[in-house]
Amino acid sequence: MDFVMPSFVQILDFIGTFAFAISGIRLASAKRFDWFGAYVVGFATAIGGGTIRDVLLDVTPAWMLDPMYLICTAFAMFFVILFGKYLIKLNNTFFLFDSIGLALFTVVGFGKSLALGYPCWIAIIMGSITGAAGGVIRDVFINEIPLIFRKEIYAMACVVGGLVYWLCLKMEFDSYIAQIAGGITVFLTRILAVKYQITLPVLKGDPANEN
Amino acid sequence: MDFVMPSFVQILDFIGTFAFAISGIRLASAKRFDWFGAYVVGFATAIGGGTIRDVLLDVTPAWMLDPMYLICTAFAMFFVILFGKYLIKLNNTFFLFDSIGLALFTVVGFGKSLALGYPCWIAIIMGSITGAAGGVIRDVFINEIPLIFRKEIYAMACVVGGLVYWLCLKMEFDSYIAQIAGGITVFLTRILAVKYQITLPVLKGDPANEN
Amino acid sequence: MDFVMPSFVQILDFIGTFAFAISGIRLASAKRFDWFGAYVVGFATAIGGGTIRDVLLDVTPAWMLDPMYLICTAFAMFFVILFGKYLIKLNNTFFLFDSIGLALFTVVGFGKSLALGYPCWIAIIMGSITGAAGGVIRDVFINEIPLIFRKEIYAMACVVGGLVYWLCLKMEFDSYIAQIAGGITVFLTRILAVKYQITLPVLKGDPANEN
Repeated sequence: MDFVMPSFVQILDFIGTFAFAISGIRLASAKRFDWFGAYVVGFATAIGGGTIRDVLLDVTPAWMLDPMYLICTAFAMFFVILFGKYLIKLNNTFFLFDSIGLALFTVVGFGKSLALGYPCWIAIIMGSITGAAGGVIRDVFINEIPLIFRKEIYAMACVVGGLVYWLCLKMEFDSYIAQIAGGITVFLTRILAVKYQITLPVLKGDPANEN
Repeated sequence: MDFVMPSFVQILDFIGTFAFAISGIRLASAKRFDWFGAYVVGFATAIGGGTIRDVLLDVTPAWMLDPMYLICTAFAMFFVILFGKYLIKLNNTFFLFDSIGLALFTVVGFGKSLALGYPCWIAIIMGSITGAAGGVIRDVFINEIPLIFRKEIYAMACVVGGLVYWLCLKMEFDSYIAQIAGGITVFLTRILAVKYQITLPVLKGDPANEN
Repeated sequence: MDFVMPSFVQILDFIGTFAFAISGIRLASAKRFDWFGAYVVGFATAIGGGTIRDVLLDVTPAWMLDPMYLICTAFAMFFVILFGKYLIKLNNTFFLFDSIGLALFTVVGFGKSLALGYPCWIAIIMGSITGAAGGVIRDVFINEIPLIFRKEIYAMACVVGGLVYWLCLKMEFDSYIAQIAGGITVFLTRILAVKYQITLPVLKGDPANEN
């Protein structure tokens, strides 16, 4: 096996996967899952969005083509086991990593959908699914209402970034520029929304349950 | 873009999608989801069943071929935002719309499976998944036990309608007649079950939990 | 229709499906699901793992090619309805059946992935998904935290069995021997872990929730 220098995107992908896996593992640990359960939740958080995207696009899920995601989740697992109690001090770092992952995953999902010949509105949805659906699976596994449905601008950052990506393509910018602009938009939207506590309004409908 | 008169089936499809989306959005609102979360739950309720069907049948999910479902969910969203407090007075109307949607989705799912060459017993299951699985996804998202597993004749109406559809085909009726008979059966089974409070018996097994 | 003698593997498959369906139906009954709900949960427990595997491998789910799984779940349903109160005395028998099912499903999932040309590390994951994911779906449907993430060696037995299967292939044993060795490993790991109450350690991370 030759060692191949990872590209810049691969490094970002690793960082994003690591941060997503850490978020799943930490929540699983708070629910007293065993090691296996925590690993599975971490892995599902990291690859869940991309897997749903690839099943909908009818291509082989990305994690089945490269064991990197399994290995990266294992690193995240050891990291939580070893440094569990100090992690709370690193919350800002993880928030940064998580936002980088969100931006990258969105751009990757958008680009992959376009490359497979889907229209832009599908690409925006697929970018958002890639970025945000892993967190929904995580929250279903730990039996909580998905966080992204109630709190913070999270998946909306993916949608906004996707719109910017699409606008750049519409204006016939180079696809690299569109990717970078889209990714930075996701990242900044997420960071600024948390910093200035910008949230979407809660829907005030009627509280009556119906089928 | 030319404006094309929608067909009768497209109008029914729009009504069904609208009713299913409303049901998701209202339940999300009762759980204090934000606008984004409510939209996603409404959309998943409307397209979830058809998406699972299309993934199992290995074809592109219907909502990825036509932005109508996204737009229709947006209409449902505005409707709940604007008329939220009056909705409870419209419960009977929504119940009617929901039953129309259930009937139509079942027939569409059944017909699509047959057209793809699957046998009738698969078509009955796919029709029921198309009609009822969106509500299961909705209830998983809002962290409740799926309603259709505990209350009312809902998915059973799809199964009964599918059986009638299949019987009509067996008796070599025209496929339009089979569709209409199947759809009306779903609709009437649902309406009559609710009107006369017909329910399936609760399963009395042993209460011991085991793995 | 000619009656064809079922093979030994088909009999094991029937036993495994029956045991998995019983486990779903009993838990649904403990939550007071109606007959339809209990049947669906039983069926999803039995075929859920194989369905996720087949969707990821992009082949038609096994239960869509053979009505045996539907029929077997119906038998399990009648069994619980008729003998519900005596089932608790049969817990040891069901535990045995469930472990047979787990072993068989793991081996089937592993072999199918290899036959489709996937590498061994994918086969190990697919074997584990086949064996254990049905129980996760069951627990999501009944709105509980998935049991396999918190208690007992269950999915880990699949992983260990998959590793043994893979080792046997590496050592160029006949594929039948690899299958039997893998299956027996799953079965024994599961039985011994329960008998000697061997569990994986709980992950002690920090309890702080983060996104």
